[in-house]
Amino acid sequence: MPSTHLELITIGTELLLGFTVDTNSAFLGQVLSNAGMRIVRRTSVSDTPADIRAAVDEALTRTSFVITTGGLGPTRDDMSKQVVAELLGLPLQFDDVVWQAVLARYRRFNRVPTESNRSQAMVPVGGIALPNQWGTAPGLWLESPRGVVVMLPGVPLEMRMLTEHEVLPRLRARAGASVIRSATLRTSGIPESTLAERIGELEDALAPLSLAYLPGTSGVDLRLTAWDLAPDDADRALRDGIARLRERAADWTYGEGDTDLAEVILSQLRQSGRQLAVAESCTGGLLGGRITSIPGASDVFIGGMIAYANRAKEAIDVSPELILAHGAVSSEVAAAMAAGVAEGSGAAVTVSITGIAGPGGGSAEKPVGTVWFGYSVDGAVDTQKSVFGGTRPEIRERAVQGALMGVWRRLGGASREPSTL
Amino acid sequence: MPSTHLELITIGTELLLGFTVDTNSAFLGQVLSNAGMRIVRRTSVSDTPADIRAAVDEALTRTSFVITTGGLGPTRDDMSKQVVAELLGLPLQFDDVVWQAVLARYRRFNRVPTESNRSQAMVPVGGIALPNQWGTAPGLWLESPRGVVVMLPGVPLEMRMLTEHEVLPRLRARAGASVIRSATLRTSGIPESTLAERIGELEDALAPLSLAYLPGTSGVDLRLTAWDLAPDDADRALRDGIARLRERAADWTYGEGDTDLAEVILSQLRQSGRQLAVAESCTGGLLGGRITSIPGASDVFIGGMIAYANRAKEAIDVSPELILAHGAVSSEVAAAMAAGVAEGSGAAVTVSITGIAGPGGGSAEKPVGTVWFGYSVDGAVDTQKSVFGGTRPEIRERAVQGALMGVWRRLGGASREPSTL
Repeated sequence: MPSTHLELITIGTELLLGFTVDTNSAFLGQVLSNAGMRIVRRTSVSDTPADIRAAVDEALTRTSFVITTGGLGPTRDDMSKQVVAELLGLPLQFDDVVWQAVLARYRRFNRVPTESNRSQAMVPVGGIALPNQWGTAPGLWLESPRGVVVMLPGVPLEMRMLTEHEVLPRLRARAGASVIRSATLRTSGIPESTLAERIGELEDALAPLSLAYLPGTSGVDLRLTAWDLAPDDADRALRDGIARLRERAADWTYGEGDTDLAEVILSQLRQSGRQLAVAESCTGGLLGGRITSIPGASDVFIGGMIAYANRAKEAIDVSPELILAHGAVSSEVAAAMAAGVAEGSGAAVTVSITGIAGPGGGSAEKPVGTVWFGYSVDGAVDTQKSVFGGTRPEIRERAVQGALMGVWRRLGGASREPSTL
Repeated sequence: MPSTHLELITIGTELLLGFTVDTNSAFLGQVLSNAGMRIVRRTSVSDTPADIRAAVDEALTRTSFVITTGGLGPTRDDMSKQVVAELLGLPLQFDDVVWQAVLARYRRFNRVPTESNRSQAMVPVGGIALPNQWGTAPGLWLESPRGVVVMLPGVPLEMRMLTEHEVLPRLRARAGASVIRSATLRTSGIPESTLAERIGELEDALAPLSLAYLPGTSGVDLRLTAWDLAPDDADRALRDGIARLRERAADWTYGEGDTDLAEVILSQLRQSGRQLAVAESCTGGLLGGRITSIPGASDVFIGGMIAYANRAKEAIDVSPELILAHGAVSSEVAAAMAAGVAEGSGAAVTVSITGIAGPGGGSAEKPVGTVWFGYSVDGAVDTQKSVFGGTRPEIRERAVQGALMGVWRRLGGASREPSTL
């Protein structure tokens, strides 16, 4: 087994019961891959000593390098440290440096540690306590003839911080000459199957890179991965592969990597010296929320109206008569919303969303998922319709992404109407 | 190993790389526990045949009942079915009923299946193909002398639907007399450590129930779990336990189970015949988005203003002078926003949010995380300040929850100002 291979064990009965989604695993998968390590298996077990012991024992037998998360706090069901120390044949001893750090933290929060907190200062002989300034329980780096076990707390913030500050630097020193690298192309507005037809036989030409289609509510991401290449070769192959994919999907490609479409639009607005405002019905504020998830949006994002009830649409000059004549979900109302919020806010660019997010409210003519978008750019108003699939939250997220794609196209991101769909 | 114990194996290199968060595991953990089954271990492996084979083999040796997700589609890296059939010694044979279903689905979407799609109609001898009307690849229920293997597709919607329609009915028939049941109390506005002090020694009195503290951006959930009790005993113990916890945390408890605070508030509004509008600055629409995530909110939720840039605040009568005098993040501006949106919308209840979500923009006097809330209820306006910790998205989510808690208290959900914090 190469020294860059490792197994991940996440400890917690809550994980097995499904009460906690295992985001720690996803985070570690990403940062460890980027550091050239390869997680070959991931296991989740309950908080019981026998289960923890069996999982670590088996993983060490297979891979001899194990990272665990969870089971390091002071509460009664946290016993991973004892179990692992015993398994590795390392007796625990009281570490005064760690204890002083625990005491300092409690002082800072004006609290008094209890006797049970002393267990957090017990460190297996020969192990390294990884200082945790974001919580009380330190991480542990344990080496023994059976292999390496790195133990991290389960609290996401503490786990992330310890990984970045303590674990990755030590791992980078271990990693060899080959890396796992990925590059992603982000598309939106084109179904996975249509995209696959357009890319087709290219997949063979991309070898040795592997191609994955990753559909989600923001569109379909295309991920290329280079396995076990030297860093330069990997980078070159990925650059070339991404360029080939881009050619086939240019009309729907808004970015690479983890680019957020909202961020792309904010740049377009800044470059063209325009400001944006929104008018939202079925999304109820999610579009504004998405745009303002980007720090510093306020220079080009003004704000807008949440026009959820029909009454609220009057505030942006959408008359009850118009709604009565065409329905709230219509091209006419979408256009009036976009024009009304442009008038009210003075923004050069506006976008409106009015649709049926379900589960009720659909009809044969306007099924659940029907969404009308209105756009106003420098006074020119137009509208567009989409019918999205999925649940209520999925339809709303797709509508937000659809509105952003519409703005992106109108600000020159790609041709206004992709011709080949 | 009791017949209700099983292991879960999620297949997919994307999972190990952390590109996909394993929400399938969380879903299965919940519904299987509710059905009286107990997941004793969860493993994630790559798409390679050797890894899939090893994981299923080991799991069957330990537990003799395995559910897998992923690896059933038509693309080249999907080979779980072949591997598992081989492992169980079951030859594959072409199943015309399954093939006709695949053809029908393709016809429905006006597409023509390729030769590679025929592999989806191959079923291990003696196995049951679980019909999948939400995708092309059927699930599989395989029984052999080594144990049971249930194979589900990895696409979340298909996995969920097959679980509900095909797997759970079969599992319920197998489950014995004892169940795993949980009950949850939802609190907000009180730190985990303070809550733990209030609940304190009660934890021993709750036995044999186990108590877990689950902190998140919406507050701290308290989860009681009954293991291996008869259904009636479990229900009684949980009811009693929840009542005891409620006594200790009444001032911060807004619901039980998976109750959404937004839903609680919509009910309060309906019962009191009032309507709600919002004015959001740093949350940019997330509060409206959260409220409208509840279907049918439009009868009491009017909408409101996204007043992100200072200029947009003028639309709800917040003057530039007021902002200049006190700062956009101030009691005065929060009050003016709440009053202004009440005036503009006619809503009896309004709430405003103005704060510093970070990462920039903080000062010694107003650090990142400082949020002012304004409330207007039947014309009476008041404000409240909180300082939230966390990242920008966490601060924004906590601010949304804080605004909802403020409305909840003012509509009689609990005392206006909890006295003991």
